[in-house]
Amino acid sequence: MDKTRTTSCYAVIFWSKLREGGEGYQEAAERMEALAAEQEGYVGIESVRDASGDGVTISYWESREAIARWRDHPEHRLIQERGRREWYAEYRLEVSRVERSLHFPA
Amino acid sequence: MDKTRTTSCYAVIFWSKLREGGEGYQEAAERMEALAAEQEGYVGIESVRDASGDGVTISYWESREAIARWRDHPEHRLIQERGRREWYAEYRLEVSRVERSLHFPA
Repeated sequence: MDKTRTTSCYAVIFWSKLREGGEGYQEAAERMEALAAEQEGYVGIESVRDASGDGVTISYWESREAIARWRDHPEHRLIQERGRREWYAEYRLEVSRVERSLHFPA
Repeated sequence: MDKTRTTSCYAVIFWSKLREGGEGYQEAAERMEALAAEQEGYVGIESVRDASGDGVTISYWESREAIARWRDHPEHRLIQERGRREWYAEYRLEVSRVERSLHFPA
């Protein structure tokens, strides 16, 4: 877990529910996390998924522009399309601006 | 999973890592979710935790004031203290303002 971030940033909250038996998901998710980390304006990414296939990934970005560039990255676009076709039963994405942050232990 | 919310709101992102063997955690978590839902300005709450004890809970609220009231709720305060003493190895909390939301399938 990252400690509290000192700079203001945006959090892209991505809740998702996987279909059963979708092949290639885990590999694609790892590739996207690595690719995101190479983008300008990237701050961090963290995710958790339970055994039933419900999960959330939150990526943190310096600006709305960085989020838009990542959304439109060609390789990411292809994976988004594949995700809707093959992997996700459902998802919800929220773009939010982080106003305060605290960490325990301090 | 809730569908896209039509009103603007705040998301309180609570990443946590549980210690091993903490008793009473699950019961307290369920009680807090139910109590949160009774509060004025509550919008929703969703959480996911994996088998290793890493999890995230995101609660959604109409206003900063509603978040502050929930933070200061006496029963919630006692559970926060117990959490630091007994259940959490680590946590990070972020208050963020949701600016955009989308859901799949639309």
